Amino acid sequence: MTDERVYNFSAGPSVLPEAVLRRAQAEMMNYRGSGMSVMEMSHRSPAFSEIFGETKQKFRTLMQVPESHEILFLQGGATLQFAAIPMNLMEGGTADYAVTGNFSGKAAKEAEKYGRVHIACSTAESGHHRIPKQEELALDPEAKYFYYCSNNTIYGTEWQYVPETPAPLVCDMSSDILSRPVDVKRYGLIYAGAQKNMAPAGLTVVIVDRSLAGRELPFTPQIMSYRTMIENDSLLNTPPCWCIYMLGVVLDWLKEQGGVEGMEQLKRARAKLLYDCLEESRLFRLHAEKDSRSDMNVTFRTGDTALDAEFVAFAAARGLVNLKGHKLTGGMRASIYNAMPMEGVEALVKTIKEFEREHV
Amino acid sequence: MTDERVYNFSAGPSVLPEAVLRRAQAEMMNYRGSGMSVMEMSHRSPAFSEIFGETKQKFRTLMQVPESHEILFLQGGATLQFAAIPMNLMEGGTADYAVTGNFSGKAAKEAEKYGRVHIACSTAESGHHRIPKQEELALDPEAKYFYYCSNNTIYGTEWQYVPETPAPLVCDMSSDILSRPVDVKRYGLIYAGAQKNMAPAGLTVVIVDRSLAGRELPFTPQIMSYRTMIENDSLLNTPPCWCIYMLGVVLDWLKEQGGVEGMEQLKRARAKLLYDCLEESRLFRLHAEKDSRSDMNVTFRTGDTALDAEFVAFAAARGLVNLKGHKLTGGMRASIYNAMPMEGVEALVKTIKEFEREHV
Repeated sequence: MTDERVYNFSAGPSVLPEAVLRRAQAEMMNYRGSGMSVMEMSHRSPAFSEIFGETKQKFRTLMQVPESHEILFLQGGATLQFAAIPMNLMEGGTADYAVTGNFSGKAAKEAEKYGRVHIACSTAESGHHRIPKQEELALDPEAKYFYYCSNNTIYGTEWQYVPETPAPLVCDMSSDILSRPVDVKRYGLIYAGAQKNMAPAGLTVVIVDRSLAGRELPFTPQIMSYRTMIENDSLLNTPPCWCIYMLGVVLDWLKEQGGVEGMEQLKRARAKLLYDCLEESRLFRLHAEKDSRSDMNVTFRTGDTALDAEFVAFAAARGLVNLKGHKLTGGMRASIYNAMPMEGVEALVKTIKEFEREHV
Repeated sequence: MTDERVYNFSAGPSVLPEAVLRRAQAEMMNYRGSGMSVMEMSHRSPAFSEIFGETKQKFRTLMQVPESHEILFLQGGATLQFAAIPMNLMEGGTADYAVTGNFSGKAAKEAEKYGRVHIACSTAESGHHRIPKQEELALDPEAKYFYYCSNNTIYGTEWQYVPETPAPLVCDMSSDILSRPVDVKRYGLIYAGAQKNMAPAGLTVVIVDRSLAGRELPFTPQIMSYRTMIENDSLLNTPPCWCIYMLGVVLDWLKEQGGVEGMEQLKRARAKLLYDCLEESRLFRLHAEKDSRSDMNVTFRTGDTALDAEFVAFAAARGLVNLKGHKLTGGMRASIYNAMPMEGVEALVKTIKEFEREHV
């Protein structure tokens, strides 16, 4: 078995930087002379406490999280946050939800258990191929928060602006976190599952304005209470230690690449190369409208299901894998997160052109 | 940096078999020719689906889980189960809780949010140094379930019998799962955080009688509903993929060691060696009563805090680490889970005797 690796366009869990994996592999049996793997360390040990504290600090620095906001390392992914957010922030009242994709729809549905959900906008009927403009948002003046998902992985759309709302912004950034600078103080809460841009699956990063904590409903489980988690610095219980360690290694790599500014340049360059190629294409067409396109998930198709499948196989034979679109959209999806090297996108463009020459 | 490893007596997260870590290290950059790490695989991909299905089947076979019971791979650890269990099984009624340590006490407290908690027994006043006998259990005839923790990590006690109760048994087996055969059909629900005997932190295994699912309270989050998780074969959302993979590797190792019967022999041998040494000791004394002693966590002390600390340092200098007891008990604790080799306990016994010669 060689170490030859593919270009992995999976929507999540997703590619990790090769340098990150190599460092983790090298440190695996004996982390810095501790005589054990990070996977074997007590979460209360000095060695792991250092990893935890440094990772949190690196995250704060790279994403410029102000001191008003706490950074939590939790479990349960977006699905747990779908319930935790209304349990903690809704106070049994109303919240605005912008439904621009599958996950924001799921979030709105789960929130109905805990209060009144007001749909501020929905693109469901048009197949979620665009993001509504500011003036299209119907805001409830009683809303305790405004919930949206900044990038819709399945449909390949991305909010190109930060909504202006009287209520605090709550944002699912799972698929575009750390891919660009974010003005964190504009948000009440930001969360992201780690498995697209940050670390292996099993870690959720939550950034929450401390002033919003402490309003949870009485039946909120301890593990879902932001107040309790802030009081315990995420260590109420055993955290997903290996994922936190991996996040730290990814953040070191990200810093070397120029931080979120470097990531944004790379993100724009990757997306431009791929969108330019697809716009010129006489075989493929894009799913998302131009002003709503995602730089992280590029959705495209030929319009012929059999030909789509043929392309996916054609690319896989060339070491470009996981290009099949989600069942809700069909066609293809290229997820080009932070860890996708430019070379991967160049190889994809070459493959698209090669396939097109054979089929047009 | 060499690969020289210590003997790690940490209570959790804990030592993993060295052979398991070496296999994971070797497969890390390119899992079986897939061209990617398991950490980068979509949880819906064929390669990961195979890992998931095989790991579940290995677990079912090794622990002889009957078909009446579902095996779930979840997140959130015991702390999430403290809430999920009453939300799913209590139906707003009453449940019996046996409080024999810190974690069962926490479970009882969390359950109070969802119904009436009846304390079937508590050893809190006597410092949790023993397990009550069957005839000491005060059972509520209305109880929807009887909750206990089979092994108390902090206090070093272990239930030597399975309670007889009219209500279904619910058991936290985090610190002794897979260390001995268990008659699973006697239980309504068994759960265990992975980080002591099974895998890195971030995975919780739940074994639940399917007939108990579907009674959750209306505000139960989707991610905490056993019914929903059974319907989705744990894949409602992205699971902790790396931990599930590691569990599979651990289960292969466990099978090679003779399965749970092999683990039980090893567990008895390890514990006997250490308890015999401590019983003979003129310096150390044991915390737990003889008929309640844990084979997984051995708690002992000199009675002199400074001398205890000296012993912990003395052992650490000899490569035996994490022997300091929990702050609730003080003294020392040697956690000797499945992955602790006999050689580690032999080295500890030698060190205890050496320290004793110098101090008696």
